Amino acid sequence: MTQLLKVQNFGLTADGFGAGEGQTLERPFGHANPMELMAWAGATASWPNRTEPGGTRGLDDYFTRDFSNNIGAEIMGRNKFGPQRGPWEDHDWTGWWGDVPPFHTPVFVLTHHPRPSFTLADTTFHFLDATPAEALEQAKAAAHGKDVRLGGGVTTIREFLEADLVDTMHIAVAPLELGRGERLWESPDELTDRFHHEAVPSSSGVTHHIFWRR
Amino acid sequence: MTQLLKVQNFGLTADGFGAGEGQTLERPFGHANPMELMAWAGATASWPNRTEPGGTRGLDDYFTRDFSNNIGAEIMGRNKFGPQRGPWEDHDWTGWWGDVPPFHTPVFVLTHHPRPSFTLADTTFHFLDATPAEALEQAKAAAHGKDVRLGGGVTTIREFLEADLVDTMHIAVAPLELGRGERLWESPDELTDRFHHEAVPSSSGVTHHIFWRR
Repeated sequence: MTQLLKVQNFGLTADGFGAGEGQTLERPFGHANPMELMAWAGATASWPNRTEPGGTRGLDDYFTRDFSNNIGAEIMGRNKFGPQRGPWEDHDWTGWWGDVPPFHTPVFVLTHHPRPSFTLADTTFHFLDATPAEALEQAKAAAHGKDVRLGGGVTTIREFLEADLVDTMHIAVAPLELGRGERLWESPDELTDRFHHEAVPSSSGVTHHIFWRR
Repeated sequence: MTQLLKVQNFGLTADGFGAGEGQTLERPFGHANPMELMAWAGATASWPNRTEPGGTRGLDDYFTRDFSNNIGAEIMGRNKFGPQRGPWEDHDWTGWWGDVPPFHTPVFVLTHHPRPSFTLADTTFHFLDATPAEALEQAKAAAHGKDVRLGGGVTTIREFLEADLVDTMHIAVAPLELGRGERLWESPDELTDRFHHEAVPSSSGVTHHIFWRR
């Protein structure tokens, strides 16, 4: 079986931003509000961070419940892991997800400043100073035949797109504008030379953009 | 975790038929052509019966790749298993799916004529003379905490709907008419008193109707 590299449930504004400016410990998305950006996902029954029963089981739920389907590892950029820049000064801080991160697989964090791996519940974080191709090779080996999720953020997705390593991509475009921040695209049409593209509007107000290799 | 009873990827014509008239060994869907009815699914990368690489990975593929996601058992009516009526005369015939059925779980076949269970690859078929509620109880126990798929056909789905046992339902309505056969509904609106309902058109021509309990 082919192992795919997949972007899944990545939230974007209508003007193409995945995060705002000014990331801090308290504001992982900078001046953007992740509750707005990801409202469609939080409303679904299968949202990994859901703590109470209930939630919708319509179209949007197909996307959130696919999040861990056949995924064996995740790759993320350092800024998805935490707000620190430069050498790590505090190894006690272990990411934004608390004691039970929603990944449940090995996670490879790309950084120019490696640090020791550690495990929280069933998620192990590894820190790699590597090219996208090298990171993908390691993640595929760790995934034991399953697919690999490319978690973001925007800069990391763009690097993997430039290296032509992305097989499928699901971007959920929310009906809000941000004006500035981390921009993935000006238009999804930028990708249609290399990818098939479907745009599927949802009753929640987002439009699901689905891409797969031509 | 709640165990759900789910109808998944059930194909219907625009006039509400899930199968034609005159089921035989050679024509499991009677005068209906299952290749037309399920063309949307057969084109996807994740179609369980796919034998060659390739296939689409757009909206339709989210539905086919959800087919086995967290499913621990299936319930089906006897006419989905085979064309025989009355007492079984040939125990050597073991269903329409060859040596490796696409279920990979226990399958409970409802029939007034029980016969011994048997296993093909990783699918075990059991034959039950039971009410829908009794069958669901057995299937849930066999599913070890996972959800249960209600495989059809139309008569079986209607019986489980009448018993109010169905939690979620995905019906893919193909752009063709059949005129006569096994009819699920005259309109999906018949179900909206008990279910939330979303209708999602796909570029393949089908409309995905998604229902979940109110």
